[in-house]
Amino acid sequence: MWNYKTPGIPDEFFERTENVPITKEEVRVVQISKARLCPGYTVYDIGCGSGSISIEAAIQVESGKVIAIDYDPNAIELTKRNVEKFGLTNISLILGNAKEKIIELEQADAIFIGGTGGDTEDIVKICQDKLKSGGRIVIGVILIETLYSVLQIIEKLKFNSIDLTQITISKSRKTSTGTMMLARNPVTVISATKV
Amino acid sequence: MWNYKTPGIPDEFFERTENVPITKEEVRVVQISKARLCPGYTVYDIGCGSGSISIEAAIQVESGKVIAIDYDPNAIELTKRNVEKFGLTNISLILGNAKEKIIELEQADAIFIGGTGGDTEDIVKICQDKLKSGGRIVIGVILIETLYSVLQIIEKLKFNSIDLTQITISKSRKTSTGTMMLARNPVTVISATKV
Repeated sequence: MWNYKTPGIPDEFFERTENVPITKEEVRVVQISKARLCPGYTVYDIGCGSGSISIEAAIQVESGKVIAIDYDPNAIELTKRNVEKFGLTNISLILGNAKEKIIELEQADAIFIGGTGGDTEDIVKICQDKLKSGGRIVIGVILIETLYSVLQIIEKLKFNSIDLTQITISKSRKTSTGTMMLARNPVTVISATKV
Repeated sequence: MWNYKTPGIPDEFFERTENVPITKEEVRVVQISKARLCPGYTVYDIGCGSGSISIEAAIQVESGKVIAIDYDPNAIELTKRNVEKFGLTNISLILGNAKEKIIELEQADAIFIGGTGGDTEDIVKICQDKLKSGGRIVIGVILIETLYSVLQIIEKLKFNSIDLTQITISKSRKTSTGTMMLARNPVTVISATKV
Protein backbone atom coordinates (compact mmCIF):
# COMPACT_ATOMS: atom_id res chain seq x y z
CA MET A 1 0.00 0.00 0.00
CA TRP A 2 2.79 2.45 0.84
CA ASN A 3 6.18 1.40 -0.49
CA TYR A 4 8.10 4.57 0.34
CA LYS A 5 10.44 5.08 3.23
CA THR A 6 9.36 8.64 3.94
CA PRO A 7 6.11 9.42 5.78
CA GLY A 8 3.39 11.42 4.04
CA ILE A 9 0.67 9.06 2.86
CA PRO A 10 -1.96 11.05 0.92
CA ASP A 11 -5.22 11.44 2.87
CA GLU A 12 -7.23 9.73 0.14
CA PHE A 13 -5.33 6.45 0.70
CA PHE A 14 -7.09 6.08 4.06
CA GLU A 15 -10.56 4.74 4.66
CA ARG A 16 -12.70 7.55 6.04
CA THR A 17 -16.04 7.84 7.79
CA GLU A 18 -18.06 10.83 8.82
CA ASN A 19 -17.45 12.10 12.36
CA VAL A 20 -14.09 10.36 12.79
CA PRO A 21 -11.33 12.93 12.33
CA ILE A 22 -8.12 12.39 10.35
CA THR A 23 -4.82 14.15 10.92
CA LYS A 24 -4.20 15.45 7.42
CA GLU A 25 -1.10 14.62 5.46
CA GLU A 26 1.10 17.67 6.02
CA VAL A 27 0.28 18.13 9.71
CA ARG A 28 0.69 14.37 10.20
CA VAL A 29 4.13 14.50 8.61
CA VAL A 30 5.22 17.27 10.96
CA GLN A 31 3.85 15.34 13.97
CA ILE A 32 5.68 12.15 12.91
CA SER A 33 8.90 14.14 12.50
CA LYS A 34 8.57 15.72 15.95
CA ALA A 35 8.31 12.23 17.51
CA ARG A 36 11.77 11.27 16.14
CA LEU A 37 11.05 7.59 15.61
CA CYS A 38 13.43 4.65 15.28
CA PRO A 39 12.95 0.97 14.41
CA GLY A 40 12.00 -1.02 17.50
CA TYR A 41 10.21 1.83 19.25
CA THR A 42 7.01 1.40 21.25
CA VAL A 43 4.58 4.19 20.41
CA TYR A 44 1.17 5.14 21.81
CA ASP A 45 -1.36 6.93 19.62
CA ILE A 46 -3.92 8.35 22.04
CA GLY A 47 -7.10 9.46 20.32
CA CYS A 48 -6.16 7.61 17.15
CA GLY A 49 -9.24 8.70 15.14
CA SER A 50 -8.91 7.22 11.66
CA GLY A 51 -5.53 5.70 12.56
CA SER A 52 -3.47 7.73 10.10
CA ILE A 53 -0.79 8.59 12.68
CA SER A 54 -0.70 4.97 13.91
CA ILE A 55 -0.14 3.72 10.39
CA GLU A 56 2.64 6.18 9.55
CA ALA A 57 4.30 5.46 12.92
CA ALA A 58 3.98 1.67 12.49
CA ILE A 59 5.79 1.89 9.14
CA GLN A 60 8.61 3.92 10.71
CA VAL A 61 9.13 1.72 13.80
CA GLU A 62 9.22 -1.51 11.71
CA SER A 63 9.94 -4.22 14.34
CA GLY A 64 8.53 -1.94 17.02
CA LYS A 65 4.87 -1.49 17.80
CA VAL A 66 2.10 1.05 17.96
CA ILE A 67 -0.71 0.98 20.51
CA ALA A 68 -3.73 2.92 19.21
CA ILE A 69 -6.32 4.04 21.75
CA ASP A 70 -9.67 5.74 21.31
CA TYR A 71 -12.86 5.89 23.36
CA ASP A 72 -14.99 6.00 20.21
CA PRO A 73 -15.86 2.53 18.86
CA ASN A 74 -16.23 4.08 15.38
CA ALA A 75 -12.62 5.29 15.53
CA ILE A 76 -11.31 1.90 16.62
CA GLU A 77 -13.33 0.18 13.90
CA LEU A 78 -12.05 2.63 11.28
CA THR A 79 -8.45 2.32 12.48
CA LYS A 80 -8.83 -1.47 12.25
CA ARG A 81 -9.97 -1.18 8.64
CA ASN A 82 -7.01 1.06 7.83
CA VAL A 83 -4.55 -1.28 9.56
CA GLU A 84 -5.88 -4.11 7.41
CA LYS A 85 -5.80 -1.96 4.28
CA PHE A 86 -2.11 -1.16 4.82
CA GLY A 87 -1.33 -4.78 5.78
CA LEU A 88 0.33 -3.84 9.09
CA THR A 89 0.75 -6.35 11.91
CA ASN A 90 2.44 -4.17 14.54
CA ILE A 91 -0.54 -2.06 15.66
CA SER A 92 -2.73 -3.10 18.58
CA LEU A 93 -6.04 -1.41 19.22
CA ILE A 94 -7.55 -0.47 22.56
CA LEU A 95 -11.10 0.79 22.94
CA GLY A 96 -11.62 2.80 26.09
CA ASN A 97 -10.63 5.74 28.24
CA ALA A 98 -6.95 6.48 27.72
CA LYS A 99 -6.52 7.59 31.35
CA GLU A 100 -7.38 4.10 32.55
CA LYS A 101 -5.92 2.08 29.70
CA ILE A 102 -2.47 3.71 29.54
CA ILE A 103 -1.58 2.73 33.10
CA GLU A 104 -1.42 -0.96 32.21
CA LEU A 105 0.80 -0.46 29.15
CA GLU A 106 4.53 -0.99 28.83
CA GLN A 107 6.76 2.13 28.76
CA ALA A 108 6.74 4.13 25.52
CA ASP A 109 9.51 5.69 23.43
CA ALA A 110 7.11 8.17 21.88
CA ILE A 111 3.52 9.23 22.53
CA PHE A 112 1.11 11.00 20.21
CA ILE A 113 -1.92 12.67 21.72
CA GLY A 114 -4.65 13.68 19.30
CA GLY A 115 -8.30 14.40 19.64
CA THR A 116 -8.97 13.78 23.31
CA GLY A 117 -11.97 14.89 25.31
CA GLY A 118 -11.53 17.67 27.87
CA ASP A 119 -8.94 15.66 29.77
CA THR A 120 -5.78 16.21 27.72
CA GLU A 121 -4.10 17.72 30.80
CA ASP A 122 -4.64 14.54 32.85
CA ILE A 123 -3.48 12.38 29.97
CA VAL A 124 -0.27 14.41 29.62
CA LYS A 125 0.41 13.82 33.32
CA ILE A 126 0.02 10.05 32.99
CA CYS A 127 2.09 10.05 29.80
CA GLN A 128 4.94 11.66 31.70
CA ASP A 129 5.16 8.52 33.83
CA LYS A 130 4.84 6.14 30.89
CA LEU A 131 7.44 7.81 28.64
CA LYS A 132 11.03 6.61 28.81
CA SER A 133 13.68 9.20 29.57
CA GLY A 134 14.55 10.92 26.29
CA GLY A 135 11.20 9.87 24.81
CA ARG A 136 9.10 12.35 22.88
CA ILE A 137 5.56 13.55 23.40
CA VAL A 138 3.70 15.12 20.45
CA ILE A 139 0.31 16.72 20.97
CA GLY A 140 -1.87 17.99 18.14
CA VAL A 141 -4.17 20.75 19.36
CA ILE A 142 -7.01 22.67 17.76
CA LEU A 143 -8.78 24.16 20.80
CA ILE A 144 -7.42 27.28 22.49
CA GLU A 145 -8.46 25.88 25.88
CA THR A 146 -6.45 22.70 25.27
CA LEU A 147 -3.46 24.70 24.07
CA TYR A 148 -3.49 26.78 27.24
CA SER A 149 -3.96 23.88 29.62
CA VAL A 150 -1.34 21.65 27.97
CA LEU A 151 1.17 24.50 27.97
CA GLN A 152 0.48 25.14 31.65
CA ILE A 153 0.95 21.52 32.66
CA ILE A 154 3.82 20.51 30.39
CA GLU A 155 6.05 23.27 31.75
CA LYS A 156 5.53 21.94 35.27
CA LEU A 157 6.27 18.31 34.41
CA LYS A 158 9.54 16.55 33.59
CA PHE A 159 9.83 17.75 30.02
CA ASN A 160 12.37 19.93 28.22
CA SER A 161 12.84 21.19 24.64
CA ILE A 162 9.20 22.27 24.69
CA ASP A 163 8.22 23.51 21.23
CA LEU A 164 4.96 24.95 19.94
CA THR A 165 4.56 24.97 16.17
CA GLN A 166 1.40 26.34 14.61
CA ILE A 167 0.80 25.00 11.12
CA THR A 168 -1.61 26.57 8.67
CA ILE A 169 -2.02 24.74 5.39
CA SER A 170 -3.76 25.85 2.22
CA LYS A 171 -4.30 23.47 -0.68
CA SER A 172 -4.86 24.24 -4.34
CA ARG A 173 -8.17 23.66 -6.04
CA LYS A 174 -8.99 24.17 -9.69
CA THR A 175 -11.85 26.54 -10.46
CA SER A 176 -13.32 27.16 -13.89
CA THR A 177 -10.91 30.05 -14.40
CA GLY A 178 -7.74 29.12 -12.54
CA THR A 179 -6.18 27.80 -9.37
CA MET A 180 -7.29 29.00 -5.93
CA MET A 181 -5.90 28.17 -2.50
CA LEU A 182 -8.32 26.74 0.08
CA ALA A 183 -7.40 27.42 3.70
CA ARG A 184 -7.51 24.78 6.40
CA ASN A 185 -7.76 25.53 10.09
CA PRO A 186 -4.53 26.07 12.00
CA VAL A 187 -3.27 23.19 14.13
CA THR A 188 -0.73 23.67 16.91
CA VAL A 189 1.73 20.84 17.51
CA ILE A 190 3.24 20.80 20.99
CA SER A 191 6.30 18.59 21.32
CA ALA A 192 8.75 17.97 24.14
CA THR A 193 11.36 15.53 25.41
CA LYS A 194 10.92 13.61 28.66
CA VAL A 195 13.80 14.50 30.98
CA MET B 1 24.58 13.28 14.42
CA TRP B 2 21.01 12.22 13.61
CA ASN B 3 20.17 8.73 14.78
CA TYR B 4 16.43 8.78 14.06
CA LYS B 5 14.68 7.20 11.14
CA THR B 6 12.21 10.02 10.63
CA PRO B 7 13.21 13.27 8.92
CA GLY B 8 12.98 16.55 10.85
CA ILE B 9 16.45 17.59 11.98
CA PRO B 10 16.18 20.77 14.08
CA ASP B 11 17.51 23.84 12.26
CA GLU B 12 20.09 24.53 14.95
CA PHE B 13 21.86 21.22 14.17
CA PHE B 14 23.02 22.70 10.85
CA GLU B 15 25.95 24.98 10.28
CA ARG B 16 24.63 28.31 9.12
CA THR B 17 26.07 31.40 7.47
CA GLU B 18 24.56 34.75 6.65
CA ASN B 19 23.05 35.07 3.18
CA VAL B 20 22.79 31.33 2.56
CA PRO B 21 19.17 30.29 3.05
CA ILE B 22 18.02 27.18 4.91
CA THR B 23 14.76 25.31 4.35
CA LYS B 24 13.43 25.30 7.88
CA GLU B 25 12.56 22.11 9.71
CA GLU B 26 8.80 21.88 9.23
CA VAL B 27 8.73 22.99 5.59
CA ARG B 28 11.70 20.70 4.92
CA VAL B 29 9.84 17.75 6.43
CA VAL B 30 6.85 18.40 4.17
CA GLN B 31 9.13 18.71 1.13
CA ILE B 32 10.91 15.44 1.96
CA SER B 33 7.54 13.70 2.37
CA LYS B 34 6.27 14.99 -0.97
CA ALA B 35 9.33 13.47 -2.69
CA ARG B 36 8.37 9.94 -1.49
CA LEU B 37 11.91 8.62 -1.13
CA CYS B 38 13.17 5.05 -0.99
CA PRO B 39 16.57 3.49 -0.30
CA GLY B 40 18.68 3.42 -3.46
CA TYR B 41 17.14 6.51 -5.02
CA THR B 42 19.13 9.10 -6.94
CA VAL B 43 18.06 12.60 -5.89
CA TYR B 44 18.99 16.07 -7.14
CA ASP B 45 18.85 19.04 -4.80
CA ILE B 46 18.92 22.08 -7.07
CA GLY B 47 19.70 25.29 -5.20
CA CYS B 48 20.86 23.36 -2.15
CA GLY B 49 21.61 26.44 -0.02
CA SER B 50 22.80 25.21 3.37
CA GLY B 51 22.29 21.59 2.31
CA SER B 52 19.54 20.77 4.80
CA ILE B 53 17.33 19.05 2.19
CA SER B 54 20.33 17.17 0.77
CA ILE B 55 21.20 15.86 4.22
CA GLU B 56 17.69 14.73 5.09
CA ALA B 57 17.33 13.12 1.66
CA ALA B 58 20.72 11.39 1.90
CA ILE B 59 19.68 9.80 5.21
CA GLN B 60 16.44 8.54 3.66
CA VAL B 61 17.95 7.11 0.45
CA GLU B 62 20.71 5.24 2.37
CA SER B 63 22.58 3.34 -0.40
CA GLY B 64 21.27 5.87 -2.91
CA LYS B 65 22.80 9.24 -3.59
CA VAL B 66 22.09 12.94 -3.54
CA ILE B 67 23.55 15.43 -5.99
CA ALA B 68 23.52 18.93 -4.52
CA ILE B 69 23.85 21.85 -6.93
CA ASP B 70 24.17 25.57 -6.31
CA TYR B 71 25.64 28.46 -8.25
CA ASP B 72 26.76 30.19 -5.05
CA PRO B 73 30.22 29.04 -3.85
CA ASN B 74 29.19 29.99 -0.29
CA ALA B 75 26.26 27.56 -0.47
CA ILE B 76 28.43 24.72 -1.77
CA GLU B 77 31.03 25.42 0.91
CA LEU B 78 28.35 25.47 3.63
CA THR B 79 26.69 22.30 2.30
CA LYS B 80 30.12 20.64 2.34
CA ARG B 81 30.56 21.58 6.00
CA ASN B 82 27.13 20.20 6.83
CA VAL B 83 27.78 16.97 4.91
CA GLU B 84 30.94 16.51 6.97
CA LYS B 85 29.16 17.40 10.19
CA PHE B 86 26.54 14.72 9.59
CA GLY B 87 29.18 12.21 8.42
CA LEU B 88 27.44 11.47 5.13
CA THR B 89 29.26 9.93 2.17
CA ASN B 90 26.44 9.76 -0.40
CA ILE B 91 26.19 13.44 -1.31
CA SER B 92 28.13 14.91 -4.22
CA LEU B 93 28.42 18.64 -4.69
CA ILE B 94 28.32 20.58 -7.92
CA LEU B 95 29.11 24.29 -8.16
CA GLY B 96 27.56 25.94 -11.16
CA ASN B 97 24.48 26.74 -13.20
CA ALA B 98 21.94 23.96 -12.75
CA LYS B 99 20.67 24.38 -16.33
CA GLU B 100 24.07 23.34 -17.69
CA LYS B 101 25.09 20.90 -14.98
CA ILE B 102 21.91 18.79 -14.83
CA ILE B 103 22.17 17.72 -18.47
CA GLU B 104 25.26 15.62 -17.76
CA LEU B 105 23.75 13.82 -14.74
CA GLU B 106 22.25 10.34 -14.57
CA GLN B 107 18.44 10.07 -14.41
CA ALA B 108 16.83 10.97 -11.07
CA ASP B 109 14.10 9.31 -8.97
CA ALA B 110 13.29 12.58 -7.22
CA ILE B 111 14.25 16.22 -7.73
CA PHE B 112 14.07 19.10 -5.26
CA ILE B 113 14.20 22.62 -6.59
CA GLY B 114 14.83 25.34 -4.04
CA GLY B 115 16.13 28.84 -4.23
CA THR B 116 16.88 29.29 -7.88
CA GLY B 117 17.44 32.51 -9.74
CA GLY B 118 14.80 33.73 -12.17
CA ASP B 119 15.11 30.56 -14.27
CA THR B 120 13.03 28.06 -12.28
CA GLU B 121 10.79 27.57 -15.32
CA ASP B 122 13.72 26.49 -17.52
CA ILE B 123 15.04 24.23 -14.78
CA VAL B 124 11.65 22.51 -14.44
CA LYS B 125 11.69 21.83 -18.18
CA ILE B 126 15.11 20.19 -18.02
CA CYS B 127 14.11 18.24 -14.90
CA GLN B 128 11.19 16.74 -16.79
CA ASP B 129 13.70 15.05 -19.10
CA LYS B 130 15.98 13.91 -16.27
CA LEU B 131 13.25 12.45 -14.02
CA LYS B 132 12.40 8.79 -14.36
CA SER B 133 8.77 7.91 -15.06
CA GLY B 134 6.93 7.91 -11.71
CA GLY B 135 9.63 10.12 -10.19
CA ARG B 136 8.65 13.11 -8.08
CA ILE B 137 9.49 16.79 -8.44
CA VAL B 138 9.21 19.04 -5.37
CA ILE B 139 9.61 22.79 -5.71
CA GLY B 140 9.74 25.19 -2.76
CA VAL B 141 8.56 28.64 -3.78
CA ILE B 142 8.46 31.99 -1.99
CA LEU B 143 8.05 34.39 -4.90
CA ILE B 144 4.63 34.97 -6.46
CA GLU B 145 6.27 35.29 -9.87
CA THR B 146 7.94 31.89 -9.50
CA LEU B 147 4.70 30.31 -8.27
CA TYR B 148 2.87 31.60 -11.34
CA SER B 149 5.52 30.61 -13.84
CA VAL B 150 6.08 27.13 -12.39
CA LEU B 151 2.34 26.47 -12.33
CA GLN B 152 2.06 27.59 -15.95
CA ILE B 153 4.85 25.34 -17.16
CA ILE B 154 4.28 22.25 -15.01
CA GLU B 155 0.73 21.86 -16.30
CA LYS B 156 2.04 21.82 -19.88
CA LEU B 157 4.76 19.24 -19.22
CA LYS B 158 4.58 15.48 -18.58
CA PHE B 159 3.49 15.68 -14.96
CA ASN B 160 0.36 14.57 -13.13
CA SER B 161 -0.85 14.63 -9.50
CA ILE B 162 0.12 18.30 -9.39
CA ASP B 163 -0.33 19.61 -5.84
CA LEU B 164 0.19 23.08 -4.40
CA THR B 165 0.49 23.24 -0.62
CA GLN B 166 1.01 26.57 1.08
CA ILE B 167 2.58 26.21 4.52
CA THR B 168 2.57 28.96 7.11
CA ILE B 169 4.44 28.19 10.32
CA SER B 170 4.48 30.11 13.58
CA LYS B 171 6.87 29.17 16.39
CA SER B 172 6.60 29.86 20.08
CA ARG B 173 8.88 32.30 21.85
CA LYS B 174 8.98 33.07 25.55
CA THR B 175 8.50 36.70 26.50
CA SER B 176 8.83 38.12 30.02
CA THR B 177 5.12 37.54 30.61
CA GLY B 178 4.18 34.44 28.62
CA THR B 179 4.41 32.59 25.33
CA MET B 180 3.89 34.33 21.98
CA MET B 181 3.76 32.90 18.48
CA LEU B 182 6.17 34.34 15.91
CA ALA B 183 5.01 34.11 12.29
CA ARG B 184 7.22 32.94 9.47
CA ASN B 185 6.63 33.73 5.82
CA PRO B 186 4.43 31.34 3.85
CA VAL B 187 6.15 28.88 1.55
CA THR B 188 4.35 27.10 -1.28
CA VAL B 189 5.46 23.57 -2.10
CA ILE B 190 4.60 22.42 -5.60
CA SER B 191 4.87 18.69 -6.13
CA ALA B 192 4.04 16.42 -9.04
CA THR B 193 4.71 12.99 -10.50
CA LYS B 194 6.48 12.52 -13.84
CA VAL B 195 4.18 10.65 -16.19
